[in-house]
Amino acid sequence: MIIIGEKVNGFIPRTLQAIEERDEAYIRKIAEAQTEFGADFIDVCAGTAPEIERETMKWLIGLVQDTVDTPLCIDSSDTDVLLEMMQLANKPGMINSISGETGKCEAILPVIGGTDWKVVALTCDQSGIPTDPEVKFQIADSLIQKALAHDVPLGNIFIDPLVTTLATTNDSLLSFNEAVRKIKGKYPEVHITSGLSNISFGMPFRKAINTQFLALAMSAGMDSAIMDPTSADMRATLYSTDALLGNDDFCMNYLTAFRKGVIGPAKK
Amino acid sequence: MIIIGEKVNGFIPRTLQAIEERDEAYIRKIAEAQTEFGADFIDVCAGTAPEIERETMKWLIGLVQDTVDTPLCIDSSDTDVLLEMMQLANKPGMINSISGETGKCEAILPVIGGTDWKVVALTCDQSGIPTDPEVKFQIADSLIQKALAHDVPLGNIFIDPLVTTLATTNDSLLSFNEAVRKIKGKYPEVHITSGLSNISFGMPFRKAINTQFLALAMSAGMDSAIMDPTSADMRATLYSTDALLGNDDFCMNYLTAFRKGVIGPAKK
Repeated sequence: MIIIGEKVNGFIPRTLQAIEERDEAYIRKIAEAQTEFGADFIDVCAGTAPEIERETMKWLIGLVQDTVDTPLCIDSSDTDVLLEMMQLANKPGMINSISGETGKCEAILPVIGGTDWKVVALTCDQSGIPTDPEVKFQIADSLIQKALAHDVPLGNIFIDPLVTTLATTNDSLLSFNEAVRKIKGKYPEVHITSGLSNISFGMPFRKAINTQFLALAMSAGMDSAIMDPTSADMRATLYSTDALLGNDDFCMNYLTAFRKGVIGPAKK
Repeated sequence: MIIIGEKVNGFIPRTLQAIEERDEAYIRKIAEAQTEFGADFIDVCAGTAPEIERETMKWLIGLVQDTVDTPLCIDSSDTDVLLEMMQLANKPGMINSISGETGKCEAILPVIGGTDWKVVALTCDQSGIPTDPEVKFQIADSLIQKALAHDVPLGNIFIDPLVTTLATTNDSLLSFNEAVRKIKGKYPEVHITSGLSNISFGMPFRKAINTQFLALAMSAGMDSAIMDPTSADMRATLYSTDALLGNDDFCMNYLTAFRKGVIGPAKK
């Protein structure tokens, strides 16, 4: 599993507070903790009003890179912001995100083609977010073809099939998993990721839904997640599911994680 | 999900102690707690030396029936004990178990045919416990045909495809799930159950493996489990997985369970 740590994100109230107070210690702490618990990328999203997005992103990126060596996942809905912030990265990371919306691919793909930069591609376009797995697949297919045409290798593409919320869509996981199977069926080397906590929006006890979504989506072939690696429950789910799915020879990763205290019973 | 509460079992050290001390209060407590948290059947297994199995079973069955109305799941490897203990049941319950071993089907099926008794049928025979999903399916198929011939309806048959331990068999869940899909593919009305905690034998932090096995096996079609319903983690997994798999319209069961405190964050 390729873990994209989600916590440095101004849409999360506690992080927004730290941004507003310019609380360096908090941002450093969550960058460090996510790295310690296995984040392969640190997502950085300002999430605030557009007029101060650039300034906030620069501050966050500077702090994160000063604290950890983990590559960045630069997260903005503004393509120009993505392109500018890439310049601040110490090393190739990930762009979050492109989609089928006009202009995004055309701006980003030529810049990352032929480099080690990775890209998250959402299965939506100007007509909105589809729920039909076949439509999700068609958009993914078209995005992958465009990426290939710009010399972005399959292994650098992370498709996010955009999970809908379970509270309003009863077959949310089922259609997500069907899209995953279709995409992996045609492109086994492409990664599948998900900003998975959307699944439990509006539900109580979200942790239960989030952990089981992780397990069930992994069983369909999802091999990355935009998640909180500092959550003990998410880690327990991740390691045990990987072992059960036969991805962990002799359960060595599971046993090592237990020995190091990465997973295990809650401390009293 | 049809839940068979596993706790009244002399193979569990705390229950064995209660049996040895003839601790009525403890047995009543675990019978009550399992019922309160959703057990559809209460498994009763003496688990002790054969010479006192009958006496222990009688004591346990008397206590459980005096405490709760939940039907019994009579659990013994001795066919004669099963047949004798059936006579003590206040109402039809479940027999645990028959298998492909010579003599078991022939003794049990004629007795429960035409009644409301249910039966757990294990996918093993005198050659042992197969790991190959196709062999598991063949044994299940043969057991189901014998049950049908004795007028046991498909809905009263609970096949247990005998999960092997993950620590020694890396594809344990995968082959279990393949067997489940084959059996459910041919016999959609037959139930699939599992004494699922075998999966984590010899592993640390067994709870993580057990919960994710439950979720992943449910996704393949397992619709029953021999488990501990008093475990908050197992309940959270069960309700959230059922909702994610589209088995819980509008998440009503999940929301009701949350409102009643059946699932939710751990109490401080």
